[in-house]
Amino acid sequence: MLEVELKARVDDLGAVRERLHTMRAVFECAVTERDLYLNSPARDFAKTDEALRLREAGGHYTLTYKGSRKTGHPLKAREEIICGIESGETMEKILVALGFRPVAEVRKRREYYHVGDATVTLDSVEGLGEFVEIELDSHAGVPASYLIDLAASLGVTGKPIQDSYLELLEKSRKKG
Amino acid sequence: MLEVELKARVDDLGAVRERLHTMRAVFECAVTERDLYLNSPARDFAKTDEALRLREAGGHYTLTYKGSRKTGHPLKAREEIICGIESGETMEKILVALGFRPVAEVRKRREYYHVGDATVTLDSVEGLGEFVEIELDSHAGVPASYLIDLAASLGVTGKPIQDSYLELLEKSRKKG
Repeated sequence: MLEVELKARVDDLGAVRERLHTMRAVFECAVTERDLYLNSPARDFAKTDEALRLREAGGHYTLTYKGSRKTGHPLKAREEIICGIESGETMEKILVALGFRPVAEVRKRREYYHVGDATVTLDSVEGLGEFVEIELDSHAGVPASYLIDLAASLGVTGKPIQDSYLELLEKSRKKG
Repeated sequence: MLEVELKARVDDLGAVRERLHTMRAVFECAVTERDLYLNSPARDFAKTDEALRLREAGGHYTLTYKGSRKTGHPLKAREEIICGIESGETMEKILVALGFRPVAEVRKRREYYHVGDATVTLDSVEGLGEFVEIELDSHAGVPASYLIDLAASLGVTGKPIQDSYLELLEKSRKKG
């Protein structure tokens, strides 16, 4: 699956939440997500622009591979493969035995909303701040401009961010 | 978890099945298991004596890492980490994206029985023949000789095999 999303920093998630209500967005759930990122023994994902992520969200676990970002795309677009797993702890043990190394953890509170052809998430990321992500539910015939227009309707006017939360955290640590 | 097992080739699974009934073994289930073995991009598992296995059995999927065999142990003993997964096909895609390569497939019909402190499986392996595996359910205070005595009671008198089915298949292919 190709993931296409628009992500931007916001000052006030409350204002976006109000606009979502006005637009009759459907609230799905609010969860605390704990993401553990791992690096490969075979290549450096920071250089190849890949990512391997173990996520725990509301007692459910997933393993996700993200490919390198497509250059030339107006928004953030990358291959994404997600598999549900029974236990994050056991999968981490398998990955560590295979030579993968945990490199960073990202924790956030996330609210999921559905509006039109997109999923909108309101994120409070530990140590980073507040963000809105807008992702197309399907890519059939929906232009990237749809996301940009939707962002404007929600009052999300900040510059689209290509960096992942992991990269933003690493950059803020280096500045630290 | 440390897996300790005794595996031997048999001429007639039916005779072992009869002995299991006489010993009041509890039959659990019979399933067709399809095992896909993958090799690592970071090291050659054939040399390090490790294994990574994706198993499909009765619609359920697991990912298993097996560490190198403990030398000096009278039976086959190795670290084993097993995680249930939602989809074998999706997990295979993630592993291939991470650089792992499918190297071989093993298919077998397996019957599971429980007797005393052990699980006994009767295996018909495609292209290899019939085998019995006896594995300790718990390792607390149960000596390896328990497995050897149980094998004798079941009429499993063949030489214990240390090789995995994957290795046996590879050896039989080389012999051609």
